[in-house]
Amino acid sequence: MKKYVFGIDVGGTSVKIGLFMTDGTLKEMWEIPTRTEDSGNRILEDIWETISAKMEQIDINSKEIEGLGMGIPGPVLEDGTVQGCVNLGWNTFNIEKKMQNLTGIKTKAGNDANVAALGEMWQGGGKGTKNIVMVTLGTGVGGGVILDGKILSGRNGAAGEIGHLPMNEEETEPCGCGKCGCLEQYASATGVVRLAKRFLEDQTEKSLLSEVDILNAKTVLDAARQGDPVALKTLDKAAGYLGKGLANIACVLNPDAFVIGGGMAKSGEILLNAIRKYFRIYTFPVSKETEFYLAELGNQAGIYGSAKLVMDP
Amino acid sequence: MKKYVFGIDVGGTSVKIGLFMTDGTLKEMWEIPTRTEDSGNRILEDIWETISAKMEQIDINSKEIEGLGMGIPGPVLEDGTVQGCVNLGWNTFNIEKKMQNLTGIKTKAGNDANVAALGEMWQGGGKGTKNIVMVTLGTGVGGGVILDGKILSGRNGAAGEIGHLPMNEEETEPCGCGKCGCLEQYASATGVVRLAKRFLEDQTEKSLLSEVDILNAKTVLDAARQGDPVALKTLDKAAGYLGKGLANIACVLNPDAFVIGGGMAKSGEILLNAIRKYFRIYTFPVSKETEFYLAELGNQAGIYGSAKLVMDP
Repeated sequence: MKKYVFGIDVGGTSVKIGLFMTDGTLKEMWEIPTRTEDSGNRILEDIWETISAKMEQIDINSKEIEGLGMGIPGPVLEDGTVQGCVNLGWNTFNIEKKMQNLTGIKTKAGNDANVAALGEMWQGGGKGTKNIVMVTLGTGVGGGVILDGKILSGRNGAAGEIGHLPMNEEETEPCGCGKCGCLEQYASATGVVRLAKRFLEDQTEKSLLSEVDILNAKTVLDAARQGDPVALKTLDKAAGYLGKGLANIACVLNPDAFVIGGGMAKSGEILLNAIRKYFRIYTFPVSKETEFYLAELGNQAGIYGSAKLVMDP
Repeated sequence: MKKYVFGIDVGGTSVKIGLFMTDGTLKEMWEIPTRTEDSGNRILEDIWETISAKMEQIDINSKEIEGLGMGIPGPVLEDGTVQGCVNLGWNTFNIEKKMQNLTGIKTKAGNDANVAALGEMWQGGGKGTKNIVMVTLGTGVGGGVILDGKILSGRNGAAGEIGHLPMNEEETEPCGCGKCGCLEQYASATGVVRLAKRFLEDQTEKSLLSEVDILNAKTVLDAARQGDPVALKTLDKAAGYLGKGLANIACVLNPDAFVIGGGMAKSGEILLNAIRKYFRIYTFPVSKETEFYLAELGNQAGIYGSAKLVMDP
């Protein structure tokens, strides 16, 4: 194994780049803007330009670099084919071959949610385990499945799409995916606000949530911590769907642990306890002791996981 | 690779043994009774005795045998530890080490449902694919997950327990596992009869099912094929739960295919079509084209899969 490795997290607004020692130590991290104009044709060149400049600045050469790992906001097949990436303006092409041709350095790419899961397994909340499911509770509900230390991609690169577990047949509002009743409609930050609004309408008691300036997942979870009845009802409902969704997953995968990340995970134990309560009701008995960990790498999970991806055989 | 391999399917009543060429051709198959008395202590010796006799009879020696693969009706850990096996009287022990010591031949063991899934992937309904979920619709609902051509066992050997996917929060009758509302309570042969009885009670129209001598899954599915309204309603309900359960799995694994086996699968396309209809409603859009195949090996899936298990690196 060589001395250095780069982890590159390509987002719709900015590209995060991490220079790691191959033992997992993050040496430096910086960002550049993502130039999505012209079908995103400049993105890979921009990345190579900033990495080359960094290598010159700190005086390391290509022979000391194990590889370039990349996380992409869209599906990536095993062979490195990106299947279109709306946020970046990309169509279908093999990003690994293109980047290798450009840089002369081994490149490996994966879906950003999957790569973040790999990062959390390597150096984050799942450190020490090899079989985890990462659940990211942000604007949507993202997921990544790591089995035997490796990303599970699936036939169409759509493994780990746990935000779209079918949870509620009676839902009439559509999810972004076109179905109705997906987990994401209740357990994402957006979903929690939607639930809170519904409960507020039906509520006769006083609630802190009627008085907040901005009703968002953070204000709901903060109010829950203060014992507000509407907030607690909202948390219980969201956690009910999440616990049941993760119980479904445990019946299929029987993983070592779930790692919970994303903005909502900042509320910590109150959220984990609520999820665990329902998980235990719904899961197969021997899976009841599956661990629940909080993610630890925040928005650096992508660069960690990308670096790990290209280091794996 | 040597010339021969044995696949051994250990059941509570009988042990099925298959002698295969390592190219997948089944040369001979036979059964011996399972002697469960005395904590099942005789079972492995009985198996070795009949295999030795066969080897002598057809004049092959240990050096020509790639290995002994075994399917066990209970959880088996990666290292070969059987974690108790009620049907056989077994406690916890390492079956691979014990069998290797007894025979001098490399042995590999797996859970019987998982091994059957591996067999179907190798030479049955899933031939040509590497990522399948096998669903066995028998007295219960069993499952096996094969990823990249290998069995997924899970932390406690409980991966693929898809009969216990939580499907119905309103169920009040308990499942065998202690929970209420598991997939198995609706989609197994037993579950289908339970549903049919419920619908028969509520039904005012005439139904063929009021007149059958024995109400079982076969009579229900036969009546459905003849257009009987209660039977069709039962099939639709069972397939609704199954389709939704498999949609859950597809969101997590995005497999190449589902392989449907067990007694109920004998009803063929009428069952697959009903499952597929609900699967497409509930699954993540890109997974809609996941293939559905009927299992092809019947009760020989276990010997095929066991043989394959010990041949894998």
